[in-house]
Amino acid sequence: MAKQKFARESFVITTEMVMPNETNPLNNLMGGHLMHSMDVAAALAAQRHSNRIVVTASVDNISFSRPIPLGAAVTYEAKVTRAFNSSMEVHIIVHAEDIPSGQRFKSNEAFFTFVAVDQTGRPIDVPELIPETEDEKNMYDYALRRRQLRLVLAGRLKPSDATELKSIFKLDE
Amino acid sequence: MAKQKFARESFVITTEMVMPNETNPLNNLMGGHLMHSMDVAAALAAQRHSNRIVVTASVDNISFSRPIPLGAAVTYEAKVTRAFNSSMEVHIIVHAEDIPSGQRFKSNEAFFTFVAVDQTGRPIDVPELIPETEDEKNMYDYALRRRQLRLVLAGRLKPSDATELKSIFKLDE
Amino acid sequence: MAKQKFARESFVITTEMVMPNETNPLNNLMGGHLMHSMDVAAALAAQRHSNRIVVTASVDNISFSRPIPLGAAVTYEAKVTRAFNSSMEVHIIVHAEDIPSGQRFKSNEAFFTFVAVDQTGRPIDVPELIPETEDEKNMYDYALRRRQLRLVLAGRLKPSDATELKSIFKLDE
Amino acid sequence: MAKQKFARESFVITTEMVMPNETNPLNNLMGGHLMHSMDVAAALAAQRHSNRIVVTASVDNISFSRPIPLGAAVTYEAKVTRAFNSSMEVHIIVHAEDIPSGQRFKSNEAFFTFVAVDQTGRPIDVPELIPETEDEKNMYDYALRRRQLRLVLAGRLKPSDATELKSIFKLDE
Amino acid sequence: MAKQKFARESFVITTEMVMPNETNPLNNLMGGHLMHSMDVAAALAAQRHSNRIVVTASVDNISFSRPIPLGAAVTYEAKVTRAFNSSMEVHIIVHAEDIPSGQRFKSNEAFFTFVAVDQTGRPIDVPELIPETEDEKNMYDYALRRRQLRLVLAGRLKPSDATELKSIFKLDE
Amino acid sequence: MAKQKFARESFVITTEMVMPNETNPLNNLMGGHLMHSMDVAAALAAQRHSNRIVVTASVDNISFSRPIPLGAAVTYEAKVTRAFNSSMEVHIIVHAEDIPSGQRFKSNEAFFTFVAVDQTGRPIDVPELIPETEDEKNMYDYALRRRQLRLVLAGRLKPSDATELKSIFKLDE
Repeated sequence: MAKQKFARESFVITTEMVMPNETNPLNNLMGGHLMHSMDVAAALAAQRHSNRIVVTASVDNISFSRPIPLGAAVTYEAKVTRAFNSSMEVHIIVHAEDIPSGQRFKSNEAFFTFVAVDQTGRPIDVPELIPETEDEKNMYDYALRRRQLRLVLAGRLKPSDATELKSIFKLDE
Repeated sequence: MAKQKFARESFVITTEMVMPNETNPLNNLMGGHLMHSMDVAAALAAQRHSNRIVVTASVDNISFSRPIPLGAAVTYEAKVTRAFNSSMEVHIIVHAEDIPSGQRFKSNEAFFTFVAVDQTGRPIDVPELIPETEDEKNMYDYALRRRQLRLVLAGRLKPSDATELKSIFKLDE
Repeated sequence: MAKQKFARESFVITTEMVMPNETNPLNNLMGGHLMHSMDVAAALAAQRHSNRIVVTASVDNISFSRPIPLGAAVTYEAKVTRAFNSSMEVHIIVHAEDIPSGQRFKSNEAFFTFVAVDQTGRPIDVPELIPETEDEKNMYDYALRRRQLRLVLAGRLKPSDATELKSIFKLDE
Repeated sequence: MAKQKFARESFVITTEMVMPNETNPLNNLMGGHLMHSMDVAAALAAQRHSNRIVVTASVDNISFSRPIPLGAAVTYEAKVTRAFNSSMEVHIIVHAEDIPSGQRFKSNEAFFTFVAVDQTGRPIDVPELIPETEDEKNMYDYALRRRQLRLVLAGRLKPSDATELKSIFKLDE
Repeated sequence: MAKQKFARESFVITTEMVMPNETNPLNNLMGGHLMHSMDVAAALAAQRHSNRIVVTASVDNISFSRPIPLGAAVTYEAKVTRAFNSSMEVHIIVHAEDIPSGQRFKSNEAFFTFVAVDQTGRPIDVPELIPETEDEKNMYDYALRRRQLRLVLAGRLKPSDATELKSIFKLDE
Repeated sequence: MAKQKFARESFVITTEMVMPNETNPLNNLMGGHLMHSMDVAAALAAQRHSNRIVVTASVDNISFSRPIPLGAAVTYEAKVTRAFNSSMEVHIIVHAEDIPSGQRFKSNEAFFTFVAVDQTGRPIDVPELIPETEDEKNMYDYALRRRQLRLVLAGRLKPSDATELKSIFKLDE
């Protein structure tokens, strides 16, 4: 197995057409379907990085901006931001494109965490992730803070021990 | 329309059997499917409270504990915790039950926020929520803090203005 | 394995939102989808009682009352009524709830019979069922008559030998 | 609209391959899926007879004989047996065919009742059904008895008034 | 295994109702769904002939004539036309039937080729196909030409070596 | 509406994970599902070019090379090659990527033709397509020949009139 892989090697794009059964009575895409597709695209990115079966460990806060109508094209772009032993953080950004107007807008974005597992379901180490672009490096650096926030929110880290988190919440101000 | 409704009136239980197409290659339920079902159950609770079409506005951090095997029974319990004008926070807790062993364990829980809309998709006010039990009252009280955290994470509120949030993160320590 | 279990231990509630692909051209829930969901909910109750894989053995006459519109919430409540060696009778009752009006009405009810099987598919004994409430006791007592009717309708019992059945059809009048 | 149509004009055949998501943990077709497909095939027969949207009114007792394995071909044959004003009784028979062995066996059969409706959902008259073959004539004749049994089971006819039913249950014996 | 089987023994009919999730924004059946159903029906015919698992090897040019509306009945009729060692050519013809008008029209037709495989996925010989009717004999005879066209289009046969193909394209004119 | 658009503006990538319900008993992706996904991805490219609802008019010969296993990532890349009044030819190429080995291989490719329609379903003109790269120019030039082959195969053009086709089949050799 490769010891290190580039962020770009994990990049996944997927595009879906909003179908009738995925919509609410106003003919807009339901949030639950969007999350399902985000999970699948993000899992594909984590699989490309690890060449392993991956399981979803957590999803950060997601907020939904504007409705996506029936028949629109929805694009999901996912890329691993950082690897920690057996876990990987994946950033995913979603855009929607209204066909008649050709108008494209950002719908939402999120961070998912996956754990690579072997055939018995046990966590197994993955390659280190090497960021190359400015954007990838920023994502990589801030991954530590997001990880601490996740642990605090899950009750597995005391806020006072979350040293990296302070700069996000400007706790020292 | 009722001006006020009790938390218990919005309570929704749903139980699903894990089907083959919802599983990963280790025959465990995929995170994306779990989130989809959580969204549907939580939306039903928000609809019961508001008697309106509801749209998902946000989902808080979700973490997944242990794998849920093919054929297991998964139970989703959702209840509105508090209403704010046109939006409602819903708490949802998920348990899984392995059939052969009869073993039942908590899989995960989360808070979803929904907005009630009219037939043109515009936000519309919903009844106030009246908590009755100790647990409902706690959920109701802490809803303000969770709401501030959501706004901070979405970049729509400055951490220094998030007065309620301080007690969660013990920012004053 | 427990030798006896209470009826209430098998109780299953599930709630679904009527989705576009489950409706006919009048935008009402199709009967076939309703039966599919009834079967799944009833099977979950039989699995809770037996802690076994169960297979559908028969379904009694079902009649459908009024149409259930797109977007409605449909609630399925299933409970084992009586166990006979490896088979279990499950009662299931379905209610629909129109979201805009908040109106809730009974859609239909039915009795399903399941057989518990081992990993090779062979029938295997299940715990006895203990009814507690008045309603559970009535369901338990009349289960014999329904079973005879099933056997008569399946051509496996002569009407003249269906001693329990007589009281249903008041054959002696 | 035709005043009368032949039974054979409504005849529908459909063949399905058992797919993974339709099976239980023993890799056999679930009863709920079978009922769903029976309802769709029977509805197609009722639509061919009436040239109308049809809604499922009732299903008679169904019993399931032997398991149908993953990958098998399942054939549904449906035909209207008799029309009563706006309602139609449809007979449906299901066979399964195991591909490796080429063995074909009868899985089960049932009678469904559909009501033809107009665009507002109101019942509307359908053509009379003309049976031609010996089998069609038998089905036609016995339809009255089955109808009475349905009404008795639904609590809408007193057993003592079910004159046609007597010959089935040999109530006079 | 039978050494020879008749064309009619492989005949498969399947009938589907066009459901909302299979339609485009004009409420007509999507081409992709039609192709999916054609593949399944054609595979069933090839399985009936071979009593084996079959895999799709190729599909010939398909053109779609007129739109098929939501709620229509679509009938797929498939039959093996000729067997070549481990491969089988299947002809499939699709008709649509508009329910309100009762109007039935041919939607399209195509030729699929399947390969029979054993449990390890390796090609395995199938029975010879015996055509009986005039139509079956024509299908059988022209199968050679279609096969050469497929090989030429796939770049696996030089047009100049496609002796049978000449008569289709009247290459000698 | 733009009079002209570049080929690259229509480019669509979509990536899917092979799910259990899409596989045959050997756990490989079924051809019918692959065709369905090809149609959706190609339709998205045609919609991006035309900003219209599009309907599938035809699909050229598709051949399937090697099996794609459960859990693999399948990538569909679609781009409009040429526009003719209201119709567009789309080229689509499919690659599969086995996760454990990281091995990526070309599965198959095809040409789909779509027609842009207005809200009443009538064909409507689309922008001209401007090819830029060498590959796009080749695709553009050969589109005429493929179009003639399609018309000949559909029986709507006499082979002797298919002047462009001659160079493909080297009819003059």
